[in-house]
Amino acid sequence: MKALIYNGPEQKSFEDRPTPAIKMPTDAVVRITKTTICGTDLHILKGDVATCRPGTVLGHEGVGVVDSVGPAVSTFKPGDRVLISCITACGRCEPCRKGMYSHCITGGWVLGNVIDGTQAEFVRIPHADTSLHPIPQGADEEALVMLSDILPTGFECGVLNGKVEVGGSVAIVGSGPIGLAALLTAQFYSPSQIIMIDLDDNRLAVAKRFGATDTVNSSDGNAAQLVMKLTEGRGVDTAIEAVGIPATFTLCEDIVAAGGTIANVGVHGSKVDLHLERLWSHNITITTRLVDTVSIPMLLKSLQSKRIDAKQLITHRYRLDQILQAYDTFGSAADTKALKVIIEA
Amino acid sequence: MKALIYNGPEQKSFEDRPTPAIKMPTDAVVRITKTTICGTDLHILKGDVATCRPGTVLGHEGVGVVDSVGPAVSTFKPGDRVLISCITACGRCEPCRKGMYSHCITGGWVLGNVIDGTQAEFVRIPHADTSLHPIPQGADEEALVMLSDILPTGFECGVLNGKVEVGGSVAIVGSGPIGLAALLTAQFYSPSQIIMIDLDDNRLAVAKRFGATDTVNSSDGNAAQLVMKLTEGRGVDTAIEAVGIPATFTLCEDIVAAGGTIANVGVHGSKVDLHLERLWSHNITITTRLVDTVSIPMLLKSLQSKRIDAKQLITHRYRLDQILQAYDTFGSAADTKALKVIIEA
Amino acid sequence: MKALIYNGPEQKSFEDRPTPAIKMPTDAVVRITKTTICGTDLHILKGDVATCRPGTVLGHEGVGVVDSVGPAVSTFKPGDRVLISCITACGRCEPCRKGMYSHCITGGWVLGNVIDGTQAEFVRIPHADTSLHPIPQGADEEALVMLSDILPTGFECGVLNGKVEVGGSVAIVGSGPIGLAALLTAQFYSPSQIIMIDLDDNRLAVAKRFGATDTVNSSDGNAAQLVMKLTEGRGVDTAIEAVGIPATFTLCEDIVAAGGTIANVGVHGSKVDLHLERLWSHNITITTRLVDTVSIPMLLKSLQSKRIDAKQLITHRYRLDQILQAYDTFGSAADTKALKVIIEA
Amino acid sequence: MKALIYNGPEQKSFEDRPTPAIKMPTDAVVRITKTTICGTDLHILKGDVATCRPGTVLGHEGVGVVDSVGPAVSTFKPGDRVLISCITACGRCEPCRKGMYSHCITGGWVLGNVIDGTQAEFVRIPHADTSLHPIPQGADEEALVMLSDILPTGFECGVLNGKVEVGGSVAIVGSGPIGLAALLTAQFYSPSQIIMIDLDDNRLAVAKRFGATDTVNSSDGNAAQLVMKLTEGRGVDTAIEAVGIPATFTLCEDIVAAGGTIANVGVHGSKVDLHLERLWSHNITITTRLVDTVSIPMLLKSLQSKRIDAKQLITHRYRLDQILQAYDTFGSAADTKALKVIIEA
Repeated sequence: MKALIYNGPEQKSFEDRPTPAIKMPTDAVVRITKTTICGTDLHILKGDVATCRPGTVLGHEGVGVVDSVGPAVSTFKPGDRVLISCITACGRCEPCRKGMYSHCITGGWVLGNVIDGTQAEFVRIPHADTSLHPIPQGADEEALVMLSDILPTGFECGVLNGKVEVGGSVAIVGSGPIGLAALLTAQFYSPSQIIMIDLDDNRLAVAKRFGATDTVNSSDGNAAQLVMKLTEGRGVDTAIEAVGIPATFTLCEDIVAAGGTIANVGVHGSKVDLHLERLWSHNITITTRLVDTVSIPMLLKSLQSKRIDAKQLITHRYRLDQILQAYDTFGSAADTKALKVIIEA
Repeated sequence: MKALIYNGPEQKSFEDRPTPAIKMPTDAVVRITKTTICGTDLHILKGDVATCRPGTVLGHEGVGVVDSVGPAVSTFKPGDRVLISCITACGRCEPCRKGMYSHCITGGWVLGNVIDGTQAEFVRIPHADTSLHPIPQGADEEALVMLSDILPTGFECGVLNGKVEVGGSVAIVGSGPIGLAALLTAQFYSPSQIIMIDLDDNRLAVAKRFGATDTVNSSDGNAAQLVMKLTEGRGVDTAIEAVGIPATFTLCEDIVAAGGTIANVGVHGSKVDLHLERLWSHNITITTRLVDTVSIPMLLKSLQSKRIDAKQLITHRYRLDQILQAYDTFGSAADTKALKVIIEA
Repeated sequence: MKALIYNGPEQKSFEDRPTPAIKMPTDAVVRITKTTICGTDLHILKGDVATCRPGTVLGHEGVGVVDSVGPAVSTFKPGDRVLISCITACGRCEPCRKGMYSHCITGGWVLGNVIDGTQAEFVRIPHADTSLHPIPQGADEEALVMLSDILPTGFECGVLNGKVEVGGSVAIVGSGPIGLAALLTAQFYSPSQIIMIDLDDNRLAVAKRFGATDTVNSSDGNAAQLVMKLTEGRGVDTAIEAVGIPATFTLCEDIVAAGGTIANVGVHGSKVDLHLERLWSHNITITTRLVDTVSIPMLLKSLQSKRIDAKQLITHRYRLDQILQAYDTFGSAADTKALKVIIEA
Repeated sequence: MKALIYNGPEQKSFEDRPTPAIKMPTDAVVRITKTTICGTDLHILKGDVATCRPGTVLGHEGVGVVDSVGPAVSTFKPGDRVLISCITACGRCEPCRKGMYSHCITGGWVLGNVIDGTQAEFVRIPHADTSLHPIPQGADEEALVMLSDILPTGFECGVLNGKVEVGGSVAIVGSGPIGLAALLTAQFYSPSQIIMIDLDDNRLAVAKRFGATDTVNSSDGNAAQLVMKLTEGRGVDTAIEAVGIPATFTLCEDIVAAGGTIANVGVHGSKVDLHLERLWSHNITITTRLVDTVSIPMLLKSLQSKRIDAKQLITHRYRLDQILQAYDTFGSAADTKALKVIIEA
């Protein structure tokens, strides 16, 4: 089969690979019909993710059709259309029983990281019963690709952890795909104010279209002051960090209201300053989370009932044999205005 | 009346002052019968608390008898025995309605800080209806002094914020009075493990007596490894920071389990490092809080029903005219082994 | 002043009354600008509410302008535009501190019940600081009248107690004003399904316009079967009882899913059957609540940010001197299709 | 092997049966070392449980040693010592993912009900990975038998659902094994008051020994008045129904405070009266639950750390070949004062 291979820092290729087979009784092999590229794939290609070794098929998102299942798989059979969770979970270890699938002892984020991923014609999915989701009759499969990772991440790490509340105020720092996923899912809870912060006016315009009540371009260094003004000096109840650098985390510390929450979504490469000399008495909460994808069933229902329009995130479409071109488009998002690119296998 | 006055950094005196009078219709004047000294009073005396100006009567804890009330006070009348909350709250502003009394717009921590405090024969209490608590018939008033600040602080900022759970594991960094208050109140929730960490073996021995299941002397720099070993490599569900310096916060980051919580109680004078490059994916929560004293009514009930023995915290007793000596004792706790000192007025 | 008086069962009059004056230091007198009639007022007029004695001015909803305040009122001054909560709360007793204002020891539902109410030119409001809400600049005061009682009731007793969740399923039994208030506020949480049940096709058509995803006319006795069919045999996560008779409560028992919640909003005149022989093992929750109006500040923000269109509930408008006619219209809602009637003073 | 067989109403026998074998890849066969008898077994023998057909081996509690496992079982291997949950759960269906194992689509309460149970030398356990728990080294296996059903039931259905809180007041109606299990586990949360109610003074004496702060003999019909007196007229925050008849449920309705919770644990054979004409405005919550046994891991930790003494519940011990005698003892508890009987296989 054809697959996109990580060959070490800055090196990738699209080449032939043996089709995966069932290894464990709980495995399924899925024929991919649609996949996509994640910002994390670009991190791997920069050499930032030590766990991912050269030779690995990238990709942890996608939908497809079950091709074969191990003898212990009871929920799925060949021919079933399935949504792949970016998180593999056994469903029975201590973290899984608490719903913390991201820390499954024999799973977690393994696809396109420590085992071969979804940017290929076929993928082997361990713990298939608890790592795949049945696709409802008549669902729009393109939209469903947004449920493998980006929407659960924006929702669980940003919105749920950030305790977004009816009537509350929210600021989202970073208007890239993940910030926009938080923006879309924050609206489930009808906050009265969602302030979107970014350096790029185009992305802020997209945010406005996606439902932001206010936008702030932070390039002049006055973002914190503007947010304080927009919130009558109180700051925001929820600040969602969706970038992953020290400056954006500091901005969150500057704008969170007493009693508020900073929900970190960004993947950080270095430590940040926590200003406890000021915040120790502010009754704030800071959260971190690797997505658990426990919200996929809910997101599926919300998609089916049209409470969310996930397809808005899709800007480009390619065939699997054009995947290198798809990477180029996604990798230069400032120019191409790419959010999520669909790759059809 | 006699009162303990802050005269600027490193300067205090015990001297005569005019007895306070009702200023606002919601005020009460309370004749103090018992008060105590808090670590925060020592901070003020070091010059660390900018809001407290020379000339202020120190102290924000105590019990007493209502001497007079303003015309708008409806819950208390002269002669009533009362417990003074260290937090003054109007009960009607937005933060108060959310139970965040510490951020009351016209209150918060004001006693012995921006207005005269309780280390005196009399004190004026603003918003008396919502800042005093009636003392139940037959209560031990010495024990009640522990409910003005130290027990609510350990409980709300450490135990509640730290989500201490039945069967869970807890580490408390710092075995001073506030860490011990967290230790005593953590036991309300029957965690299976409470590990106490300090540099001082005497304090760790006290912790053991107060219910710690394990103690770790952190002076050799191996505390994190020991805690990991005690928790079979998982780390603790709850890490309570009860010191207030960068090193102890870092220790909390090193020992918190995936999915766990760091509850900051310590008063910090400088920023700390937050290792998001490691913790971004650990599903952790960090909380800060200035005590709201919303738990005082519950603590009163627990004291009355003997679910907690607050008096264990009291090590020394003085008369008000011996308060300078009481400060000496409390200020050199390493030598005197002082925890809380009762000052009888 | 002119006022609508309850004169005993089935008897009311619109007549002259002395203008109320400040009695307690915490009182305010408010000049009513807009009020409305509640289903509860009709209950009183039927003689069903024993606490309301003949001679009482009816009404517990409205907006107005502060006319005078007692010496202990600090939040409001004459001339302030205010929203009146149907619940009077001291903010300092044990139930109030828990946010259970409806059970305030010296308040609760007293307006137009045990003391004179709002269907008059002036009303005395006890505990004014915690029983009135400032009206934001530029707010639509007609819409605000919906925040005195009906929207907080639908939201707190129905939606909050019913734990309406993103992606969840909701059935609301009763499509009168209170059921519609639950319908409007349920949408704050983006459930995937809201099934509205009533005997009257007109009301169901209104429900559809207000956002119901499905409607069921229960007049043929097959409502439960239809709801089970609409939910693929599972039943609903939340069943809101908004009628107040045994049959509608039983319907809720028949349609609630395992793990679901029945939130009672209706005012019941007799006991109901609880089928524990079937439900003991269904992991369900049943809740009751007299509205606490703790959600008024949130509803104000949601109204200001246009997350809810409260004015949809208003079908008729009258002047205060037409109030008897307004009662006729509201009292024969089946014919007049009245939901809420605004009475302008 | 030998097994206790239900032969239809009022008929049971201890006889030879074929040893069970693995049927599904996710099965395990466990050799029973210790089991016990539950009140539910007596219900079955009365003919009250329609799902249990003559010929079934009774019993749903116990500990043992894994004898064989299906090819899809990954957590356990032959020789492992295991605790058997009374609830069988696949861990992957919608109810299981929510932690509602009792409503597992292919499990739930099946042992000793719709499939053969644990009162035998061997038992087949479906979904073994998620229905068994490893026994920690050195654990007291007799105490662990209390974790199969009775302690999780008292805790989850009574204490957790009843929202027992630090400083709160609790009444438990019924001082049989299940009420006592609620009593033991309620103490995890340090309520200030636990009032035990029963008709039998012996059982109340046991309750006192187990930690009840007050006991009320309800045989004279004045229980409600006594509870109101003990709670200064407020009623209790939590009322736990641990009997299962209309009168005891009504008692709970009479003693629950405004804002409180009635947690039903009892298995009811007929409907009860719900007095909504009085309770509609009392802000109460009523819950039902079939135990999910999600608390077993926590209870294991609490047992190991000696936060609970489960063995107090054990009053009698028999060998498996004495099981008919054990039934006699357990079935006449009023005379024998039996709580739980251990049956050693």
